[in-house]
Amino acid sequence: MDDRALSKNAANYVSLTPLSFLKRAAAILPDRVAVVHGGTRRSWAETYARCRRLASALQRLGVGRGDTVALLGANSPETFEAHFGVPMAGAVLTSINTRLDASTIATILAHAEATVLLVDREFSRTVARALPLLARRPQVIDIDDVAFGGGELLGTMDYEALLATGDPELAWTGPADEWQAIALNYTSGTTASPKGVVYHHRGAYLNAMSNAVWCEMGQNPVFLWTLPMFHCNGWCFTWSMAAVAGTNVCLRAVRAEPIMSLIDAEQVTHLCGAPVVLATICAAAEQSGWRPPRRVTVVTGGASPPASLLERMDAIGFDVLHGYGLTESYGPAAVGIRDAGQAALGVRERARLKARQGVICPATEDLVVADPATLAPVPRDGKTLGEVLLRGNTIMKGYFKNAAATEECFRDGWFHTADLAVCHPDGWIEIKDRSKDMIVSGGEKISSVEVESVLARHPAVLEVAVVARPDPKWGESPCAFITLKPDTALGEREVIAFCRQHLAHYKVPRSVVYGPLPKTAIGKIQKNVLRERAKALSLLI
Amino acid sequence: MDDRALSKNAANYVSLTPLSFLKRAAAILPDRVAVVHGGTRRSWAETYARCRRLASALQRLGVGRGDTVALLGANSPETFEAHFGVPMAGAVLTSINTRLDASTIATILAHAEATVLLVDREFSRTVARALPLLARRPQVIDIDDVAFGGGELLGTMDYEALLATGDPELAWTGPADEWQAIALNYTSGTTASPKGVVYHHRGAYLNAMSNAVWCEMGQNPVFLWTLPMFHCNGWCFTWSMAAVAGTNVCLRAVRAEPIMSLIDAEQVTHLCGAPVVLATICAAAEQSGWRPPRRVTVVTGGASPPASLLERMDAIGFDVLHGYGLTESYGPAAVGIRDAGQAALGVRERARLKARQGVICPATEDLVVADPATLAPVPRDGKTLGEVLLRGNTIMKGYFKNAAATEECFRDGWFHTADLAVCHPDGWIEIKDRSKDMIVSGGEKISSVEVESVLARHPAVLEVAVVARPDPKWGESPCAFITLKPDTALGEREVIAFCRQHLAHYKVPRSVVYGPLPKTAIGKIQKNVLRERAKALSLLI
Repeated sequence: MDDRALSKNAANYVSLTPLSFLKRAAAILPDRVAVVHGGTRRSWAETYARCRRLASALQRLGVGRGDTVALLGANSPETFEAHFGVPMAGAVLTSINTRLDASTIATILAHAEATVLLVDREFSRTVARALPLLARRPQVIDIDDVAFGGGELLGTMDYEALLATGDPELAWTGPADEWQAIALNYTSGTTASPKGVVYHHRGAYLNAMSNAVWCEMGQNPVFLWTLPMFHCNGWCFTWSMAAVAGTNVCLRAVRAEPIMSLIDAEQVTHLCGAPVVLATICAAAEQSGWRPPRRVTVVTGGASPPASLLERMDAIGFDVLHGYGLTESYGPAAVGIRDAGQAALGVRERARLKARQGVICPATEDLVVADPATLAPVPRDGKTLGEVLLRGNTIMKGYFKNAAATEECFRDGWFHTADLAVCHPDGWIEIKDRSKDMIVSGGEKISSVEVESVLARHPAVLEVAVVARPDPKWGESPCAFITLKPDTALGEREVIAFCRQHLAHYKVPRSVVYGPLPKTAIGKIQKNVLRERAKALSLLI
Repeated sequence: MDDRALSKNAANYVSLTPLSFLKRAAAILPDRVAVVHGGTRRSWAETYARCRRLASALQRLGVGRGDTVALLGANSPETFEAHFGVPMAGAVLTSINTRLDASTIATILAHAEATVLLVDREFSRTVARALPLLARRPQVIDIDDVAFGGGELLGTMDYEALLATGDPELAWTGPADEWQAIALNYTSGTTASPKGVVYHHRGAYLNAMSNAVWCEMGQNPVFLWTLPMFHCNGWCFTWSMAAVAGTNVCLRAVRAEPIMSLIDAEQVTHLCGAPVVLATICAAAEQSGWRPPRRVTVVTGGASPPASLLERMDAIGFDVLHGYGLTESYGPAAVGIRDAGQAALGVRERARLKARQGVICPATEDLVVADPATLAPVPRDGKTLGEVLLRGNTIMKGYFKNAAATEECFRDGWFHTADLAVCHPDGWIEIKDRSKDMIVSGGEKISSVEVESVLARHPAVLEVAVVARPDPKWGESPCAFITLKPDTALGEREVIAFCRQHLAHYKVPRSVVYGPLPKTAIGKIQKNVLRERAKALSLLI
């Protein structure tokens, strides 16, 4: 059949964009609560009007297609609104990790070419130190959140005043091309210099829908924002929540008390967070005897949760889905799935299986664990280590103004994650290490995760990280950084003796350092910092 | 920011196609049951291998990109597989309504330019009469379903023999362009001549995901095929089921006994069907006292279900979602949603609200009820009649080889449904009539649905349809076609008297005809046939 005569037209083709979800939410459930923040409750109709005001006001400030609007925001209505209002103005949202230092923030603002900066008063002190470092300062708008008492205002206008200048009925249009950028998210933490990851409207739309499917969000979800919205745009759940017209419950700080009381008061159905968030909830629930009024779906990722934590969460009343993803994959790329076979297992065995990272998400086209040299998939034996390679519409456009890094990560038609994993017989992947976290000692590869998991089992160890330390004889040797539990003692010799019982000789750490571990904004241990310390240690000797 | 350097590449751009869902289902849950059909149970790995065999075998028969493969199939594994195997070969699937007559089937086969035809033995007799009408005969492949005893084989090969010639590991590729056709579905029934509606891979992908979201399919759905798969490709649920890697339970004929026993045995979670399917289940359950082991989600559409039927289904244990759509919108375009406000209502009031057609589906970009002349949306008053206009990525490419009809329906940047509706204050639409079903009498418009709904309330009336009859004085007048319940009597005068009690005078039928009503394959009353009869009636007098 030759149907070339049937071409795209205004009725049968629209660029994919998550902005459509907001329009729909306001049309179908105008009165449903979209955002809860302290005593503030706003409907989808109100939220849509505020987002249109924001877009219109930004346009009146001169923001146009392809301009960057930066944001240092808490998990507040304003941050949620920026995910729609900024792209509705044709602009690109750069939502910056609020725990970064002034110098890094300045670097990002300059690199992103931000013309407008929205700042929550909680972060104004840091921003005030960042701005003088910039050659061209963006126009600063304050988010004056009444829920936060501290901080200072440093902008030319506050957010509400800005909205007042905008048109709540702005006749916005979506992107002419769905490949147009919607967000620019900077990687941070474990890698050396932040890279600007560019998301497009198409990918944001698709990952938002994909989340709604695998996370079983249903028609009436109530989502508690324990995950920072600045992290991959809240793993794209900002946009998912508009797709399902659910209720966003904002939370400025992850503390157990408000989490428990909001789960009760708002009948929360879903929340996300790093394992540390789960641990916080778990400890408080176990201590107080509190239980959620109905089972809550929790998505965790960013670090591997111990199986015992998953087991405890299950017992308290949380269904944990454990996933895997990167900034470059719009957040979630793989996730655990419920399986009839698993349901028949005991809680402990199920938790052990769930501690693995799962299977590919619906919108992620391809995921393989492969030999990075030959690209041949590793056998599904749960043993052979390979690199996780990804492909699909929910992979970034590339790194902004960084052709070398873009080319490097996209070689051979795959996105190279630099994460090392095995593939189990059931198809689930299990992340074993970052490529760069492998320690190569005397030609032998040592997985830092393996050494860490042995040490984590010692009753005196609270937290542990193992990195490579330059070694004149072996090239590298494992160096363990350990935080001990209060009122415990564990000497270097004991650490080494303990490891020898459970590890091959060459894998045993040759040096042990005690103290708190440096962490990123999302609670990831900063191995790059530890590597620097280990290096310095070698230089000292 | 200027990110033009960041272009599409093999790692970050893939054409959207529902074929990706099948690949993923086989990768993530290879052993989960994909298809149940009588005693046959096949996993997703097996189903994927069979679909690849089918694609490969079709290619070896000479089928290539853009060729049409026609199908007259029952709700069987072969029909499900054709939804993947045919497009995997690069071809377009034409799944033909199996209840059509030989002449119409021949017209469709010729118009679609089908080169291969797959025929279930149940339909071989009709096809045997259709084939001689064709100038060029397609190659015929028999689907020799052991679950069907009758019929004859008339092809050159049977389906299993065809599969045996194919490669189960075919290295297929998706469409180079997601706008490429995936299906060609002929409208039938209430309109005069069948039109070939062309679907593309992008739309099929998006509506499949959209279904999974609004229908709350979750991770482990078990879908009972009470809806014919030939109807808009099973309203795109064929592809949705691969997206969620659920279990398809096939059913060749809609009968209450197997429906109830399969719901029990397979733990069915979802099913779809026209209101007549619901009525069948309802009657049997009420008579036998049978209840589903857990609540089942039922999607209905195609005709308006009476509120009383929804109320009864609810009481039995079915959550009914009522939707609206057309072949041209890939099936579902609007659907009812659960709403906290509704939950607080009584069953009766809730059923009344659910009898309306709902709100726009996630993947449908825009739906308005508008004045067809000015395109201005009607007020949300539940009263003002307008035409339903649709827009978005899940609207067909157009009508195959019918530029005039394509242009006509796509005028002014909207797809014109020719369905007349009102919009309620809560945003839900309610279909009142097809444009062509409006009766214009003495310059006044009469909604045939309004007259029908009055007559349907009469205790002696089993079914009723009202159409326009040419009238020398008034232009048109309403003519009622009525089927009476067994052992009842209702004269023409009584009908008219009853209507006068409940309708404006000019709306009262001026003629009444008794007898069974002509219906389409999916149980829709064929008003075009009745209009012809009414016309003939006028000529006789």
